[in-house]
Amino acid sequence: MKLAKLVGDRSKDRPTGCVIDSHVFSLRGGYIKFVASGIYSLYPPMKRITAKIENIIRQEMDAVDCQEVLFPVVLPGSLWEESGRYQSVGDELLRFTDRNDAPMVLGMTHEEAAVQLVREYGQTYAKYPFAIYQIQTKFRDEARPRAGLIRVREFTMKDAYSFHTSQEDLEQYYDRMAHAYDRIFARAGIPETISVKSDSGMIGGSVSHEYMLLVDAGEDSIVLCDSCGYSANMEAADTTVDNSGCSPAAELTKVLTPHCKTIEDVCKFLNSKVEESCKAVMYQKNMTDEYVIVFLRGDYEVNETKLTNYLGEKVHPAVITQESGIVAGFCGPYNQKAKCQIIYDKSLEGIESLTAGANEEDYHYTGLNIKRDIGDVEYVDVSKIQSGGICPCCGKKTIRISRGIEVGNIFQLGTKYSKSMGMTYTDENGELKTPIMGCYGIGVGRLAASVLEAKHDERGPIWPISIAPWQVHLCCMRVDKDECRTIADKIYDELMAAGVEVIYDDRKASAGAMLADADLLGVPVRIIVGPKNAVNNEVELVTRDKSVSMVVSADHIMEETRKLMDQLWAKINENVK
Amino acid sequence: MKLAKLVGDRSKDRPTGCVIDSHVFSLRGGYIKFVASGIYSLYPPMKRITAKIENIIRQEMDAVDCQEVLFPVVLPGSLWEESGRYQSVGDELLRFTDRNDAPMVLGMTHEEAAVQLVREYGQTYAKYPFAIYQIQTKFRDEARPRAGLIRVREFTMKDAYSFHTSQEDLEQYYDRMAHAYDRIFARAGIPETISVKSDSGMIGGSVSHEYMLLVDAGEDSIVLCDSCGYSANMEAADTTVDNSGCSPAAELTKVLTPHCKTIEDVCKFLNSKVEESCKAVMYQKNMTDEYVIVFLRGDYEVNETKLTNYLGEKVHPAVITQESGIVAGFCGPYNQKAKCQIIYDKSLEGIESLTAGANEEDYHYTGLNIKRDIGDVEYVDVSKIQSGGICPCCGKKTIRISRGIEVGNIFQLGTKYSKSMGMTYTDENGELKTPIMGCYGIGVGRLAASVLEAKHDERGPIWPISIAPWQVHLCCMRVDKDECRTIADKIYDELMAAGVEVIYDDRKASAGAMLADADLLGVPVRIIVGPKNAVNNEVELVTRDKSVSMVVSADHIMEETRKLMDQLWAKINENVK
Repeated sequence: MKLAKLVGDRSKDRPTGCVIDSHVFSLRGGYIKFVASGIYSLYPPMKRITAKIENIIRQEMDAVDCQEVLFPVVLPGSLWEESGRYQSVGDELLRFTDRNDAPMVLGMTHEEAAVQLVREYGQTYAKYPFAIYQIQTKFRDEARPRAGLIRVREFTMKDAYSFHTSQEDLEQYYDRMAHAYDRIFARAGIPETISVKSDSGMIGGSVSHEYMLLVDAGEDSIVLCDSCGYSANMEAADTTVDNSGCSPAAELTKVLTPHCKTIEDVCKFLNSKVEESCKAVMYQKNMTDEYVIVFLRGDYEVNETKLTNYLGEKVHPAVITQESGIVAGFCGPYNQKAKCQIIYDKSLEGIESLTAGANEEDYHYTGLNIKRDIGDVEYVDVSKIQSGGICPCCGKKTIRISRGIEVGNIFQLGTKYSKSMGMTYTDENGELKTPIMGCYGIGVGRLAASVLEAKHDERGPIWPISIAPWQVHLCCMRVDKDECRTIADKIYDELMAAGVEVIYDDRKASAGAMLADADLLGVPVRIIVGPKNAVNNEVELVTRDKSVSMVVSADHIMEETRKLMDQLWAKINENVK
Repeated sequence: MKLAKLVGDRSKDRPTGCVIDSHVFSLRGGYIKFVASGIYSLYPPMKRITAKIENIIRQEMDAVDCQEVLFPVVLPGSLWEESGRYQSVGDELLRFTDRNDAPMVLGMTHEEAAVQLVREYGQTYAKYPFAIYQIQTKFRDEARPRAGLIRVREFTMKDAYSFHTSQEDLEQYYDRMAHAYDRIFARAGIPETISVKSDSGMIGGSVSHEYMLLVDAGEDSIVLCDSCGYSANMEAADTTVDNSGCSPAAELTKVLTPHCKTIEDVCKFLNSKVEESCKAVMYQKNMTDEYVIVFLRGDYEVNETKLTNYLGEKVHPAVITQESGIVAGFCGPYNQKAKCQIIYDKSLEGIESLTAGANEEDYHYTGLNIKRDIGDVEYVDVSKIQSGGICPCCGKKTIRISRGIEVGNIFQLGTKYSKSMGMTYTDENGELKTPIMGCYGIGVGRLAASVLEAKHDERGPIWPISIAPWQVHLCCMRVDKDECRTIADKIYDELMAAGVEVIYDDRKASAGAMLADADLLGVPVRIIVGPKNAVNNEVELVTRDKSVSMVVSADHIMEETRKLMDQLWAKINENVK
């Protein structure tokens, strides 16, 4: 099509309020339009990109025998009552009533709808395994939408659900799906996407993995071991702490530590090691306001996801009142009189002589030995793994922490939904059993934005040919000159006739404006018909990433373009395993 | 794929609560699953059908230079405030608030979102005309969802919006779009769909057309003239009444008509013609409760859409109180003392001597002559056209009324949305102008259900090959017999290798069950591998509509199948103009 007719504006001005490049270029390139917080319309170029991504996903889902269905966006609240999530999910589930005052929700994920669809179908073992998916609009009422299409409220998602009669069968299918995911990301041009162990969160289930694209602008912290290849989301990474070289046991001594409110202050004041100190972090349970004190090594941080999972309920940072009995700034495990749940993090295990709060204003203990002075306590892993820390897999101190964007996730759900919603099947022996489920998601718009985040330069996106809005961008630099116009028009006609997706810029615009627009559209192959080359019946053939740039006879442009496109496709396909 | 793995059950039991066949077969054939009133999930066969319909629509939209975009499902209420529809649309617009108490709506149509998307883009005349469309989920909180996918609350819709600088340009594009619609319906297998003049309703605008598929189960009444080809929705058809042969003027006489409450009673009692009587139908305005009396010929009915359009506001049937001053059952134009708006329908025009209520219990007038006894009144067309009535186009008494399902609509919107939402462009002379809009809708699921309604027999759907879930249904009648299994497997492999969409039934099931399932899936071409033919290396090749049935050598089945499919495609394509 002609660029002059493309709906949407491109702009050289950097929009305000953008924290990441993909958001900047999504707006500057005429890809998305802000409608409301976390809600966007898509202009034609982004619609073309997401349609191509959806096609790739569809093909890969079909290849693993996943059948496409469609669930509703608006679901009856009663369906979410069945699973218990109508109550358990927070404000991100948008609840409302219809004209008859019936409670409804906007689907943010469709486990309930999936079970409802196949509950009758899956009544006998012979039907298993089976899997279904949809590509459709979802709504999550996020508290803090940000970064353009990366974290939105409304989004298009591929969500798949599989049903099995055994854990082994689920695991087998989970592996097939993982392979399909690797292929999807490779085909979308980001084969560097890695799968990391993750926390299952509100979806539920035991084993789950996130697909992470490592980019500096990512929202998630990803734990990586370069030695053994271990990877996990920070939320799910086990922390191993080596306290073997610590100081020997010493006498328990109460010492004056005036105005030392933080563990760093105390250690500095006492000239002791932070690695041999015990700090306290206080929470309150959301439901009951009961206090929870986490004691952990002074240089570690609490991983609130792990803490929530251990407690089985949500917590918030504590508001310390006088009645609580907690002495803020001087809180420690010895002589602790406050009524609350106490958790000892594993980072404290093995330390013989600790500095810790004395539960008395301006006093700390030194020489605290938990086993000797308090007794046998249970150590729980609720701290964040650190860069340079011990890999939970190979044991080496090789942990590296990167930022990443989650572009997909897969869950072994178990029977959470099938059980609560009363889905059963009759097995070979006529016994009633509960099917085991898996679920598998990819956010389509987020994937597009993530590719943009990973593949751009300072002038705009560099779209992989597999998802680029067009394959060839044809620029006629001087439409007022007959020799340019004639050559460019001919190439356009030839490309169109050959079925190549081409965007043709034949506007009367400055060379600078035309090339800036071309950079913002990020089409991988570019043909430039300029006045100097035109007199020799030649044109420029370049790639958006500037790796290829040549002058070609206009008579051979079709074959050269085809060759270049084939090379770009080959680069994509060599990563698709 | 193999039928044994297809998610969804087929059933021979007729479901309860279905008023039309397409609903019955949608449920019996495993196409849709009820989730909540007017809300369905789609099983794989229906998803395959709707995907094909969407593809057809996409190709035809692209062909008229309409660019695909995507609008949000959830829209800020503020956007609908801009157009005024946040207030003016009734309960079918689902309004709610998000977690920050911001008013939101579920998009039921996207004129506002379309204007918001292109308001900046369309600031100069050079950008015009342009058109955009989306295919996406919509929600209308219908009071009475019914008939499966025909009238639902949630549905997938193609909605397009065009923008123009002149009425002529809009009309030109409107015609192109109308042509695209003809092609879409023809390609979907229902070339018999007709375009009828329609009422614009809550969308607004002046000229609009509906695309109607004439089927007995349709919800709409369609007015047709077999003489000149005129067609309109009953709501929009002008009524012409010929009173030229009526009785001459007579004396105005008050007569006793005891217990005659209806105009039929009165005419019977007085032995006068209903065609020369004046009946009264009472309404109240929704906003003010003010009474509105419509006087019309005794044998005509009020067309409430025309009445609403004339009044410019909505009305409901009146509750007659004593204070109203209206004498129910004896209400007439002469001596009418009630405080209310009085409307004379055109059906009364030209009658010299009317029977009408006397506004007094048990009394009517005969010989009422409106011009003589009341004076010059304005006659307004607010009655329903009748079967056998006068065609407003050719004037012949050839009106026929049919039932139809609306499968699409097109509107000349004018400036209703661009004006209210402040969209302007600078014209060639530097003057600010307001663009003129058109909008164009097709409900995807309703279209699928409509095709089913038009194309089925007593055993199930007969899908046109262009939208059928699969093209070939292969039945192996005896998988336990080697000769059957071998032939069927080979044909399946060959069809798959040739890229034919095939559903293969290789279950151990009775012939009756297999064929009933095949009828319910409605796949146009069927290959039956049965034991009798198999011994001769032969198979049966039939069409779902039973028009073709032949025995073919298994060695030639591929070419024969291809030939048959080509014939079915040719039948579709000969209707695509």
